[in-house]
Amino acid sequence: MTKTLKGIAASDGFATAPAYLLVEPNLSFKKTSVSDVAAEVQRLQAAIKKSDDELTTIRDIAKNSLGEEEAQVFDAHKMILADPEFTGEVEKQIKENAVNAEQALKDVADKFIAMFEAMTDNKYMQERAADVRDVTKRVMSHLLGVELPNPALIDHEVVIVAHDLTPSDTAQLNKKYVKAFVTDVGGRTAHSAIMARSLEIPAIVGTDTVTTDIKANDTVIIDGVDGDVVINPSDDDIQHYKQLAQDYAAEKAEWAKLKDAATITADGKHFDIAANIGTPKDLTGVIANGAEAIGLYRTEFLYMDSAELPTEEDQFEAYKEVLEGMAGKPVVVRTMDIGGDKHLPYLPLPEEMNPFLGYRAIRISLDRQDIFRTQLRALLRASAFGQLRIMFPMIGTLQEFRKAKAILLEEMDKLKAEGVDYDANVQVGIMMEVPAAAVLADQFAKEVDFFSIGTNDLIQYTMAADRGNDRVSYLYQPYNPSILRLIKYVIDSAHKEGKWVGMCGEAAGDPVMTPLLMGMGLDEYSMSATSILKVRSLMKHLNTEELKSLVDQAVNVSLTNDDNKKLVSEFVEAHKH
Amino acid sequence: MTKTLKGIAASDGFATAPAYLLVEPNLSFKKTSVSDVAAEVQRLQAAIKKSDDELTTIRDIAKNSLGEEEAQVFDAHKMILADPEFTGEVEKQIKENAVNAEQALKDVADKFIAMFEAMTDNKYMQERAADVRDVTKRVMSHLLGVELPNPALIDHEVVIVAHDLTPSDTAQLNKKYVKAFVTDVGGRTAHSAIMARSLEIPAIVGTDTVTTDIKANDTVIIDGVDGDVVINPSDDDIQHYKQLAQDYAAEKAEWAKLKDAATITADGKHFDIAANIGTPKDLTGVIANGAEAIGLYRTEFLYMDSAELPTEEDQFEAYKEVLEGMAGKPVVVRTMDIGGDKHLPYLPLPEEMNPFLGYRAIRISLDRQDIFRTQLRALLRASAFGQLRIMFPMIGTLQEFRKAKAILLEEMDKLKAEGVDYDANVQVGIMMEVPAAAVLADQFAKEVDFFSIGTNDLIQYTMAADRGNDRVSYLYQPYNPSILRLIKYVIDSAHKEGKWVGMCGEAAGDPVMTPLLMGMGLDEYSMSATSILKVRSLMKHLNTEELKSLVDQAVNVSLTNDDNKKLVSEFVEAHKH
Repeated sequence: MTKTLKGIAASDGFATAPAYLLVEPNLSFKKTSVSDVAAEVQRLQAAIKKSDDELTTIRDIAKNSLGEEEAQVFDAHKMILADPEFTGEVEKQIKENAVNAEQALKDVADKFIAMFEAMTDNKYMQERAADVRDVTKRVMSHLLGVELPNPALIDHEVVIVAHDLTPSDTAQLNKKYVKAFVTDVGGRTAHSAIMARSLEIPAIVGTDTVTTDIKANDTVIIDGVDGDVVINPSDDDIQHYKQLAQDYAAEKAEWAKLKDAATITADGKHFDIAANIGTPKDLTGVIANGAEAIGLYRTEFLYMDSAELPTEEDQFEAYKEVLEGMAGKPVVVRTMDIGGDKHLPYLPLPEEMNPFLGYRAIRISLDRQDIFRTQLRALLRASAFGQLRIMFPMIGTLQEFRKAKAILLEEMDKLKAEGVDYDANVQVGIMMEVPAAAVLADQFAKEVDFFSIGTNDLIQYTMAADRGNDRVSYLYQPYNPSILRLIKYVIDSAHKEGKWVGMCGEAAGDPVMTPLLMGMGLDEYSMSATSILKVRSLMKHLNTEELKSLVDQAVNVSLTNDDNKKLVSEFVEAHKH
Repeated sequence: MTKTLKGIAASDGFATAPAYLLVEPNLSFKKTSVSDVAAEVQRLQAAIKKSDDELTTIRDIAKNSLGEEEAQVFDAHKMILADPEFTGEVEKQIKENAVNAEQALKDVADKFIAMFEAMTDNKYMQERAADVRDVTKRVMSHLLGVELPNPALIDHEVVIVAHDLTPSDTAQLNKKYVKAFVTDVGGRTAHSAIMARSLEIPAIVGTDTVTTDIKANDTVIIDGVDGDVVINPSDDDIQHYKQLAQDYAAEKAEWAKLKDAATITADGKHFDIAANIGTPKDLTGVIANGAEAIGLYRTEFLYMDSAELPTEEDQFEAYKEVLEGMAGKPVVVRTMDIGGDKHLPYLPLPEEMNPFLGYRAIRISLDRQDIFRTQLRALLRASAFGQLRIMFPMIGTLQEFRKAKAILLEEMDKLKAEGVDYDANVQVGIMMEVPAAAVLADQFAKEVDFFSIGTNDLIQYTMAADRGNDRVSYLYQPYNPSILRLIKYVIDSAHKEGKWVGMCGEAAGDPVMTPLLMGMGLDEYSMSATSILKVRSLMKHLNTEELKSLVDQAVNVSLTNDDNKKLVSEFVEAHKH
């Protein structure tokens, strides 16, 4: 029977395919005594052999579809299987205690996991606990004859159905076969949602019940535009969504024509649509989607993807590559935003009760000037190769900004003395994400060259609600009038001083937010590269003068997030040109 | 030689006395082999005996000075000493391994501590780990002949010198002998600072180095007004501070005369000075200091000091006692503010990465309506016995307030149907502590009866800095223009709708903040009872009309927290009438 579920539309597009359930299998068992210990050991060895073979296959497939680096995790798993300290101990337990292999495996694995997890001063060893857990699950599945989901082995078109997708799950998905995914939990800003948009596959999150409503191989239609999941569709349904998918493809083709166009509104106003990137590799997508700038280069990946602090030279090369790749278009580079939920194995941070309210981003940079100065030197040297703009994250007070800028000027002076080229007029701006800074935007605007509004953090602090905490996710309200007031105040304050304002949070590419931001006169919209053409097309059909009354309503009259969501959707429908 | 240290003045007053160092003693030792095992066991037994005697003495003293409940913790320690599973095991280790008693004790204690700490699903057993640690320390000190600090045994006047004071340290201090304390770490809002003000003993925190600068029995002068610590003072110093202490005592006597006076400014304006309380027991201090109201009754202590959810009847009795005690003066009761850093043993909360941005206060109450409705019924029933005002904490959106108020109205209807008396006109207000609510104060003001500004949380969220985190404590900036702007906006918005505004955070009693709040027209100032008379005296000498220009300067011209601190101090000096 056909059933339709509603979720949160996390990535656009349509797909129809059989369901592949990526759910935790039931690996429960009972402890039993065995009389034939030798046979039990053989059963264990057979399960280990099957697991090893399976890992060899997965490794090969992963290497082809994802690359050598992603594949190496499976080598770690194979090494555990080959380790006599581990599997030998399981055999010993079977023999000595005459218990079933499942029980022996569990006992030994628990011991290893506890041992690794206790190594709290060695992050690397701690993470080995996860490997032991994965391998144990695989061997257990073969002992019990239960099939384990192996996303890397998928060889036909499917829609992935999961409770949630971890980063390592998503890394194993092969875009060739995975046509869409749908999850029980998550929101638009969850990691999996961001990944889906970057892979350009439709996705729906937050359905609550999809893993219980869908059985393996049920046919599923995913409508990533409206957030509908149709399970076991009728022929009529299939026909209907085929039409929608075609219309959507046609719309996408229209968007594609805007690739080389400037972003011009219905009343002839020009805005900049920029892209957010994490590494120079992302440039391909940025250029393919016709970004007018890079509005946010998150440099923390340089630090996170490294076994030690990246050198000035390493950083210089990365920044230069991006600046040259953008061929003179502006590139806003954000200095290191470590701390909060982002950690470096080689830079121990204090244990904090509330890391999002703790030692992070510019607070670390001002304290660890050795790290900060190296980054600034690399940036300044790269500034000779394009149009660089430097941005400091998590600025909360004017003193912090002045201190950071003074250090930058000192590094400029040193480079000058050394005869090294740099752009002496490089723009220096700040993220607007700490409420205190937004409330004082008028004063900051006198000292900075630009603002870039970081909506994710600004919302999290203003609403006092951790955006990663499901219990308070109802408070992640981008359209709450309080948030819109702060954004408008930041924009008005900057313009009064002749400065420009961008936005580089998730909201910049959100079709409910875009009309409001246009009405407020936001200058630059930085988003996932894959959202650019859609937003450019939307802007083309809107008149900024008409949007001013919408903004007035949303900021001064509306009382709630939901009011504003409805208000904008209805307004855009009625006023699209 | 005389030396002067500067710290943060945490509690007013002066004291001169020898130093008592409450620091961790050096209990390190080497593992050795013993040949005479019997002698070693005897050495252990002697140390156990001494520890037990000491605990008996401490228990008696604690009972007399602090009460039976506080004394019972030492019974738990004595029980561990008497437990053969513990001390018997230490003896066994000495005998079997021929090691010194110190090593055997450490090995056994470590095992017990690890065992208790592993019981993560049983908070009670987990806390036993701390008892084992304490007892082990005591026995070890006797084995090593090292003196352990025993604050409960102090029998002469001292100044306590410590790195930090835990709640259990402060609970053991006898005000008769402890004339003041000074610590390395902490700020004005630290637990120890709040305790010092409530005990009315001078205190200085955040000196960084006091525990290394002072030796046991050094003479120390504590100037709790300016935050100065004078070590080994000269005769002139002693004379000078004696004079200051006399002047201060005279000033206090002046303040005392204001006990029954209304709070009237130099230009004849009336403000309400109210007290913050945690339990009905606090009423004595409230009345002794002439509070005009209770501005914050923190009901979470009713929940925290209990082994299970307090019944409606228990709550009703507590609320009624406070309302009757205040004899018709207003009493603002805040509904349960659990979560964040406050937990209940019988109400398991989810593990959260950022509890201050998580499931707490009204967010729990709206989710757990069973708990919320019981509290509201108890409050409504008590409202018949005085002037009750109900306040919801952590309100971030209008929907939350409407939902909470709707539940309150439902409970009113039920009581009405049951024929139970209550005050149908009870005022219903909210804490202003979530920045989103402050930014929308104009809209909230149309629906609530009053606001009470909670500066601690408002600052923490607006600055995005955990107030308990030393690494970012520089961002706890009550005078930052951004905070002052939000406060002013909240006050102006309420007044526009004819509503009143109080403040119940630490800042309400801060002499730098008071003049600014008076200039903004804040209606009610709620603080520790012991601050009331001092603030009433300060207000008497200030003219609100003159303060308006000060506010304008602080909010629109000043750029930083430090600017404003200086501005207000100089202004008050020049304009005191």
